[in-house]
Amino acid sequence: MTHHYLGLDAGGTSTRAVVVSIDGLCKGVGKAGSGNPTSAGVDAATTAIRAAVTQALNAAGTGQVDGAALAVAGAGPAGHKAAIVAVLADLVASEPVFDFDVLAAYFSGTAAPDGYVLLSGTGASAVRVEDGRLAAISDGLGWLLGDIGSGFWLGREAVRAGLAPLDGRGSATLLTDLLLDRLEISPVAEREGGRTGTLVAATAALYAMPPLRLADFAALVFTAAGADDQVAAGILDRAAAGLTETLAAVRTPDVEGPLVAAGSVLARQPDFAARVAPGAVVAYDGLAGAAVLALRHAGVVVDDAVYRRVTSSLAQLTEV
Amino acid sequence: MTHHYLGLDAGGTSTRAVVVSIDGLCKGVGKAGSGNPTSAGVDAATTAIRAAVTQALNAAGTGQVDGAALAVAGAGPAGHKAAIVAVLADLVASEPVFDFDVLAAYFSGTAAPDGYVLLSGTGASAVRVEDGRLAAISDGLGWLLGDIGSGFWLGREAVRAGLAPLDGRGSATLLTDLLLDRLEISPVAEREGGRTGTLVAATAALYAMPPLRLADFAALVFTAAGADDQVAAGILDRAAAGLTETLAAVRTPDVEGPLVAAGSVLARQPDFAARVAPGAVVAYDGLAGAAVLALRHAGVVVDDAVYRRVTSSLAQLTEV
Repeated sequence: MTHHYLGLDAGGTSTRAVVVSIDGLCKGVGKAGSGNPTSAGVDAATTAIRAAVTQALNAAGTGQVDGAALAVAGAGPAGHKAAIVAVLADLVASEPVFDFDVLAAYFSGTAAPDGYVLLSGTGASAVRVEDGRLAAISDGLGWLLGDIGSGFWLGREAVRAGLAPLDGRGSATLLTDLLLDRLEISPVAEREGGRTGTLVAATAALYAMPPLRLADFAALVFTAAGADDQVAAGILDRAAAGLTETLAAVRTPDVEGPLVAAGSVLARQPDFAARVAPGAVVAYDGLAGAAVLALRHAGVVVDDAVYRRVTSSLAQLTEV
Repeated sequence: MTHHYLGLDAGGTSTRAVVVSIDGLCKGVGKAGSGNPTSAGVDAATTAIRAAVTQALNAAGTGQVDGAALAVAGAGPAGHKAAIVAVLADLVASEPVFDFDVLAAYFSGTAAPDGYVLLSGTGASAVRVEDGRLAAISDGLGWLLGDIGSGFWLGREAVRAGLAPLDGRGSATLLTDLLLDRLEISPVAEREGGRTGTLVAATAALYAMPPLRLADFAALVFTAAGADDQVAAGILDRAAAGLTETLAAVRTPDVEGPLVAAGSVLARQPDFAARVAPGAVVAYDGLAGAAVLALRHAGVVVDDAVYRRVTSSLAQLTEV
């Protein structure tokens, strides 16, 4: 027993791993590509997860760790989990515990066992945490069926609103120019099947991407709204109303704990985070929370002193 | 030269073919499955197209026809068109002409060379027709980027609004029960990862379908709105506003021709069609229009007498 544990936060963009000692000292971190088995495929995801973990173990110099908490977005089916466990078998002494990635986000903002997290990254959801566990979740239903106010939702609205004036619909908006700039499409006046070449080129480029990549256009809404564009401001109003409703759905008077705001949209847009989650602690990634989950599963009581040790030692490892 | 021509209307649900004489008499029809190369695949689409055409030629007893007009949804890339031409090579004497499926819809409602068609089926668009050709189109940008007020749009809104109350969001709506009935899911109170079993089962069933199948839920909006459900009525209001804007985008004072309403949503919901396309002729399928396109490409002037002959002879062939 080395009394070291592994925390892992694997998402659609990157996978990050941290080795933490039983007293809360983070000793090594590792980073690799997407570890989401649903979006990246099981083989690529398990390869990334092993790479991030190996890197963290080498940096910590601890060898095999005693246990692990794995927060892996998209690791639904049992087959995914079995593949991840198999690829870590020689690196972790006991069976790893899978946890919800929203919990890693939550514990990246607070050590309190009871509270709330509102998340808007590629997806969007709100969670109530009780006794360190997920007690209730609202939305998080994915890009097709929910995720109101998420990066995907914002990006799709930006693209729809930006394209509309190109065939005479909607209101004029800065989003059109911002979208064409981003797609590197110059205006083409010639028509093809009743449409301008500009619109034909833009829709072809957008349909050539995987649908989820529309999340990349979320930032255009903030740019345009910052320049007083009314269409973009309207999109932000609807996103804020949706996220506010999502958070309200998990609130209960019985749980008074802190509120954490997480996910790339909220972490990068402090004004918007303050609007939908007033008073929230903003969590910039899920790595500290993954370390906390690992310690909790090892039976460690993560009090304020341990939590401060986790976050400050982690900051030293990652700020280079 | 037999002076017979072929009209073909191939969509995502079915492919229909008609053989028409140079004087406008429809002599044989044929029907097969999806002929959309994008959604059904090129092999299945060309097989369906050949089956429908062969059936129409056999019914007409004419042998090879002189020419053909093909309105094929989703036949964008040149390779698709070449495959369709190849599979018809021995059945049509001259090179077939490809035409827009919206034009087949338009000419199924009127013989006038100038006018408008508003279409809401799985997708949605509006077209201005001048001199028998597509002069301008608005929307029709597909399920991800546009198609406001289409069957897909309505179905997706119905599903989102129906799911929302299952995790405490949105307003109570009949759409929830109608959706669960359609999915054959009985309420399950047990929770899984913070969600009721009902919601977990519903989202799993919906994500197991191809996204476009959400169009199948469009009818739930009309059912619920008919029972005074305010959420459903709100969805219809937004659909109507979107379709009205789409139609307005192609209107010009210079073209005063008739308005045709087409597509499964408008054909099946006469009250809704009257709301978004007041005074429109409703076209129930694109087969008459495909015959008209075939005659036009053969150089026939389709006046009112010829048009009446097309529609009445076609009605006799298809009303069995």
